[in-house]
Amino acid sequence: MVDLIEKKRDGQELTKEEIHYIIENYTTGDIPDYQMSAFTMAIYFQGMTDKERAELTMAMVHSGDTIDLSEIEGIKVDKHSTGGVGDTTTLVLGPLVAAVGVPVAKMSGRGLGHTGGTIDKLESVPGFHVEIENKQFIELVNKNKIAVIGQSGNLTPADKSLYALRDVTATVNSIPLIASSIMSKKIAAGADAIVLDVKTGAGAFMKDLKESKELAKAMVDIGNLVGRRTMAVISDMSQPLGFAIGNALEVKEAIDTLSGKGPKDLEELCLTLGSYMVLLAGKAESLEEARTMLVEVMNNGKALQTLKIFLEAQGGDGSVVDQPETLPQAKYVIELEAQEDGYISEIIADAVGTAAMLLGAGRATKESQIDLAVGLVLNKKIGDSVKKGESLVTIHSNYENVDEVKQKLYKSISISGSEVKAPELIYATVE
Amino acid sequence: MVDLIEKKRDGQELTKEEIHYIIENYTTGDIPDYQMSAFTMAIYFQGMTDKERAELTMAMVHSGDTIDLSEIEGIKVDKHSTGGVGDTTTLVLGPLVAAVGVPVAKMSGRGLGHTGGTIDKLESVPGFHVEIENKQFIELVNKNKIAVIGQSGNLTPADKSLYALRDVTATVNSIPLIASSIMSKKIAAGADAIVLDVKTGAGAFMKDLKESKELAKAMVDIGNLVGRRTMAVISDMSQPLGFAIGNALEVKEAIDTLSGKGPKDLEELCLTLGSYMVLLAGKAESLEEARTMLVEVMNNGKALQTLKIFLEAQGGDGSVVDQPETLPQAKYVIELEAQEDGYISEIIADAVGTAAMLLGAGRATKESQIDLAVGLVLNKKIGDSVKKGESLVTIHSNYENVDEVKQKLYKSISISGSEVKAPELIYATVE
Repeated sequence: MVDLIEKKRDGQELTKEEIHYIIENYTTGDIPDYQMSAFTMAIYFQGMTDKERAELTMAMVHSGDTIDLSEIEGIKVDKHSTGGVGDTTTLVLGPLVAAVGVPVAKMSGRGLGHTGGTIDKLESVPGFHVEIENKQFIELVNKNKIAVIGQSGNLTPADKSLYALRDVTATVNSIPLIASSIMSKKIAAGADAIVLDVKTGAGAFMKDLKESKELAKAMVDIGNLVGRRTMAVISDMSQPLGFAIGNALEVKEAIDTLSGKGPKDLEELCLTLGSYMVLLAGKAESLEEARTMLVEVMNNGKALQTLKIFLEAQGGDGSVVDQPETLPQAKYVIELEAQEDGYISEIIADAVGTAAMLLGAGRATKESQIDLAVGLVLNKKIGDSVKKGESLVTIHSNYENVDEVKQKLYKSISISGSEVKAPELIYATVE
Repeated sequence: MVDLIEKKRDGQELTKEEIHYIIENYTTGDIPDYQMSAFTMAIYFQGMTDKERAELTMAMVHSGDTIDLSEIEGIKVDKHSTGGVGDTTTLVLGPLVAAVGVPVAKMSGRGLGHTGGTIDKLESVPGFHVEIENKQFIELVNKNKIAVIGQSGNLTPADKSLYALRDVTATVNSIPLIASSIMSKKIAAGADAIVLDVKTGAGAFMKDLKESKELAKAMVDIGNLVGRRTMAVISDMSQPLGFAIGNALEVKEAIDTLSGKGPKDLEELCLTLGSYMVLLAGKAESLEEARTMLVEVMNNGKALQTLKIFLEAQGGDGSVVDQPETLPQAKYVIELEAQEDGYISEIIADAVGTAAMLLGAGRATKESQIDLAVGLVLNKKIGDSVKKGESLVTIHSNYENVDEVKQKLYKSISISGSEVKAPELIYATVE
């Protein structure tokens, strides 16, 4: 191992065998953490070639279980978003592309963060659950084109250990390591093709457009090298996406969006990502055709109907689709009023996310309880004009005194005296 | 710790407090190896400022015991050579500078390598031993100006742990880490001032003159920043120094050199290093004056007499000084004959050292037994002319069949048809 660390330290390319040797022996514990951390720091400085990244990805895939989705008909296209705040795309995209025949076999988790994971959000629909058998999961996808199951099996244990190690050795922020980590998880979960939504801007993991592009390109190259067609969209996270940040609030927003009445930025990003998914799944010949199909199922109610069928198939009360007011409701609905006239110039996504967490919308630790009803709805986005006294944000809370939340929100939203241009939504696509 | 790794990774300067925090907590085990190895790899790539190197050195000094030599009169000047093959300078320099009044309070070890450590070599003098009490050690230095004691106490434990870790994580070859490691050991051992002999060339740890200069400058800067006057000489190790490689053989060579009859390169290097030692000890006003004093004690027998007194004070048979043939003798003395006419163009020091180890002159592992009698004496050095059949090397062996040793030596000594210039001995001095 010391020779391999040295090889990487000196900027030489490791062979397939060398990379698999490292990951296999790290997984079994035969390569100790102190060698692995020196190795990852060497990668931080020296980078990895395309071939090395692809081999690292596949070595991590093979370090544990992999999900076999071969009994599901069609090309399984998975989507991944690299974090962000108020990101409702997953909730919208599943039913949207399923409605045009793309199989959506989603394995999802709960996770930590500003709001819950996809499963938490879906559980705000009364009765909905993900405790289904593998067999039933596959039958449901074949029948309804969409189902969600909780995470099971020991997927990419090497990535789990490596991520924990990188977190305490200042080697998280390395593009080859981030790219192979994300791609290994998607591939182990059975994806035939992958659409990536790389967020960029103040509220994203990657703050810088150049870095975001590098990460997107790194992942697309890995996917194509290992035989999984991959495309990436680089989308704005200089402010939260859509309006809602919270679990039930995001489900409601997803329902709105699936019927064409959602926030324009969320709708546009879902149509863009969805078009790529439809294309990669072989359900359309071109992006234009794919987009037309998606707009059609939004307009004719089929997307919403697909959501209803999906929720009911997993025990959920499908009537929420028509009556979103039956979703969990917070006790107090409080407006955050603008303190001056002007134009919204900044909404610090991270801070807004933290405000939602203060209300109870997310988990700080694995043990935290989530309050599905609470959260925030933005009434203004960057570039919007605002009058003193108008509501900037609607706060949905189960406690009455939200002064701390208000303070945090005031600090994270800036108002300028002169006109402000709304940020672009999609900066680039990488194929 | 993760923030400190990140700080170094991003090329920022760590504060005194941060460096001491790291070394203290690494010594107690509160900072795990996997963070330390990521940190050292970050240093490998980002380097350290002069101030950081000095603080790292002092933090390692304070990680364990330090030797108090304050009861010894005068300025204690220590010398350190950075490895090499056939390096008899320590055996010569001790008595040489002691003879002009510089106190030599040497703590020494056995060590691994081509030949034994200083203590092993001295033990080839019948009766000589280093098992003396601290009190006696100090009395002997005050009386005779020279004594040698075995290593005791727990000096620089942080350096020991760190070195072991660097060895298995490909971070040995980092100038700030090498420099602070060497300097911390010298300072912990009680040196008031330090003269460094940085070897350069094929047989040295630093193969490259530029790197050797950098290392020398790094150590001199550390010494001066922490209040220990330090000077360095960069000397040639493109071939072994002197003629002898072996324990008793090197003692005999030291005796020859102390009486002005040693190999010219060894004598010259000892006079150069010795002059710096005399100067730093305040026993001369200038290098020229120091050198004159040293040449005088070589010529008038005082240097040899000092060696004799030193050996006898620690139980050794002083008569070896006049009759070196009473030192351990190998059973077989075999000549390695030149296979062609020409000029010596290369003597690969490392390989010659390994040949000596094959004879039993050095330890491969801590448990190995050393044969004090055996070793090699070079009869030719680079630039010398040679006739076919002349002896290149005299092999002193306790076994008869030395074919393997001969093969190794033939491979390590090259003969050229055209004249070859002898390498320079001293490339630079750094003050």
